[in-house]
Amino acid sequence: MKILVLNCGSSSIKYKLFDMSNASVAAQGGIEKIGLPGSFLKFTLPSGEKVVLEKAIPEHTIGIEFILETLVGKEYGCISSLDEIKAVGHRIVHGGEKFNQSVIINDEVIRQVEQCSDLAPLHNPANLKGVATISKLLPKISQVGVFDTAFHQSMPRHAFMYALPYEYYKKYSVRRYGFHGTSHRYVSMRAIETLGLDPKNNKIITCHIGNGGSITAVLNGKSVDTSMGLTPVEGLMMGTRSGDIDAGALTFLMDKENLDSAGVSSLVNKKSGILGISGVSSDMREIDAAADSGNDRAILGKEMYFYRIKKYIGAYAAALGGVDAIIFTGGVGENSPECRAIACDGLQFIGVELDAEKNKVRGDEKIISSDNSRVKVAVIPTDEEYMIAFDTKTLLNL
Amino acid sequence: MKILVLNCGSSSIKYKLFDMSNASVAAQGGIEKIGLPGSFLKFTLPSGEKVVLEKAIPEHTIGIEFILETLVGKEYGCISSLDEIKAVGHRIVHGGEKFNQSVIINDEVIRQVEQCSDLAPLHNPANLKGVATISKLLPKISQVGVFDTAFHQSMPRHAFMYALPYEYYKKYSVRRYGFHGTSHRYVSMRAIETLGLDPKNNKIITCHIGNGGSITAVLNGKSVDTSMGLTPVEGLMMGTRSGDIDAGALTFLMDKENLDSAGVSSLVNKKSGILGISGVSSDMREIDAAADSGNDRAILGKEMYFYRIKKYIGAYAAALGGVDAIIFTGGVGENSPECRAIACDGLQFIGVELDAEKNKVRGDEKIISSDNSRVKVAVIPTDEEYMIAFDTKTLLNL
Repeated sequence: MKILVLNCGSSSIKYKLFDMSNASVAAQGGIEKIGLPGSFLKFTLPSGEKVVLEKAIPEHTIGIEFILETLVGKEYGCISSLDEIKAVGHRIVHGGEKFNQSVIINDEVIRQVEQCSDLAPLHNPANLKGVATISKLLPKISQVGVFDTAFHQSMPRHAFMYALPYEYYKKYSVRRYGFHGTSHRYVSMRAIETLGLDPKNNKIITCHIGNGGSITAVLNGKSVDTSMGLTPVEGLMMGTRSGDIDAGALTFLMDKENLDSAGVSSLVNKKSGILGISGVSSDMREIDAAADSGNDRAILGKEMYFYRIKKYIGAYAAALGGVDAIIFTGGVGENSPECRAIACDGLQFIGVELDAEKNKVRGDEKIISSDNSRVKVAVIPTDEEYMIAFDTKTLLNL
Repeated sequence: MKILVLNCGSSSIKYKLFDMSNASVAAQGGIEKIGLPGSFLKFTLPSGEKVVLEKAIPEHTIGIEFILETLVGKEYGCISSLDEIKAVGHRIVHGGEKFNQSVIINDEVIRQVEQCSDLAPLHNPANLKGVATISKLLPKISQVGVFDTAFHQSMPRHAFMYALPYEYYKKYSVRRYGFHGTSHRYVSMRAIETLGLDPKNNKIITCHIGNGGSITAVLNGKSVDTSMGLTPVEGLMMGTRSGDIDAGALTFLMDKENLDSAGVSSLVNKKSGILGISGVSSDMREIDAAADSGNDRAILGKEMYFYRIKKYIGAYAAALGGVDAIIFTGGVGENSPECRAIACDGLQFIGVELDAEKNKVRGDEKIISSDNSRVKVAVIPTDEEYMIAFDTKTLLNL
């Protein structure tokens, strides 16, 4: 039984086709540069080989049609008919306060997602384009929406409110929502299973560390605080995002550099983070190489990047009243022993003790704390797409 | 031997005259509304009685002259001649990266403080007016400058840098400076003395909690991180300041409310914090009264205010690699058992155990942790003015 997972951005579409009978991936790829010159479909064959098919893709419908054609096509197809796809699960970025879990998509859900578009003006409309296209191309198929924000809707108000005038919350829904919710939910569920934690009594800090990054405090399976906010800018230092920053520093720079809101937004979203500090790259592999060759700003960028993870772990341990497990996931979290070692260094006082040998793991699920460590520390590769497929299957009783 | 301490703001001057022979206060008061209608001098007599003298005070020279006249005056004077004042110590807000300790003021120092005015355009020029006026009125007297930022100059670069493009640090000195340094220095020194900590090996978290508030991580007597930033907006929730806030939330609100940088600055400095959330007041005593009478937004404001203190304690414990002592000071920190109790609740896992009975203290120096608490928690009333007088005496070998 197959489920298609779609993640539609404003100029891209990622897809994964899952065979849910054995939780395997039957096909995966993506379209890039929709509406731009040089658009193409790129996908990975079961052999690992990557195929790129260039094609003019002026808008999402053409793109999804192309994906579906390829899935059943002679040359690269893996299913004989589109009827094999039993359902489609969509990543939807912002569910505002309307969605605290995944839902079967109907007209009312679409209306509510549209109402949240104000909070994610680039993402939600693109996500809904994917929904509309599937409705058109496969009119009988059931679709499910899985929200980046839903897992964090369990945060208590003292964690999600900003200390701004209260009327901005009522008028514009300005508050912390958090993102990467599907990832934090997945790895925290998996941590409870694999680390043998008490499902009703556990304190987990999940660190999704990558080009985008966020940390979540999970109490008994529910998010109680997370580092991203109304937008993904807040919290950790990221590839190109500033993370936490003094509001007074922003108004200072607005005056100095004559920036308007678009200028500030571009500054903190696209020109900051490890790219802004290093001047080298937003990609940690390139930063590592630069730091290894003695680039002091790359070294500084790494020091800052790791330090902020440590501070959030401390803050959330305090918020949770302790911590049973710390989970690292995401591109850097899964693949950087150095990041995990430095972020955890000094946390011995709360019972964290890494095993340097075990911590050498890259990309595999593994406990990396020592046998005596009171706090279990583990690498758990995230799988947001599988989680979307899983929710789709569950909600539709497939 | 007497030392006069001055804190000159843009429209106010606070003063304290110390008798350093016994560290007592010989006179204290302040001028308000300089250059505005209704300006006045208000001071406290040794009996505790308050006296208000109305007078037109168009600018700082007239104000300081009036203070000096009153100090030697027949009716309210406490010294027979201005010659009794051996030195003047000034609070100076921003020392940028130029000052990491208090200094004897000379022309070069004045020039350097002027160079830092860009970072504190309201405060530094007013502080320097006080210096210039004393030079004019008491040309032979020595003056010392004590900076709010100096104590925090020991922060490592991973703590003080923002993840903005590096050139803003080089071009505009945009970085975390921190404030309340004189207070954090005073209470951390006092903590080492009174709690019997090893002066060369200690980890202290100092919580200056009031209408303005900041928390500092102090390692072996040196600040290694602090919650205020380039400006005093960052960090804790305050009376009218937002504290930490998603940069993306600010650009969102700029678009919605058509705010420019002055509008954002006013929003996060003057309309936010516990005033913005509660709609009641920026004063914690009024918030307490409103919360006690069931005002839900006042209750929310308090929940947020306390929660953020707890998160910073956790973050800085992680930064320090543990914590030996947590110190509460400032108007709320010294006087609110509730604030201390809630901020410390849940920190048992790092060895914090408050004694509810001892925690009833208001305004006095007292250990409030239980005898068995691994982490010592104490209330230490701050005394920034005394610290300024002390530095003045020490630097001038008086």
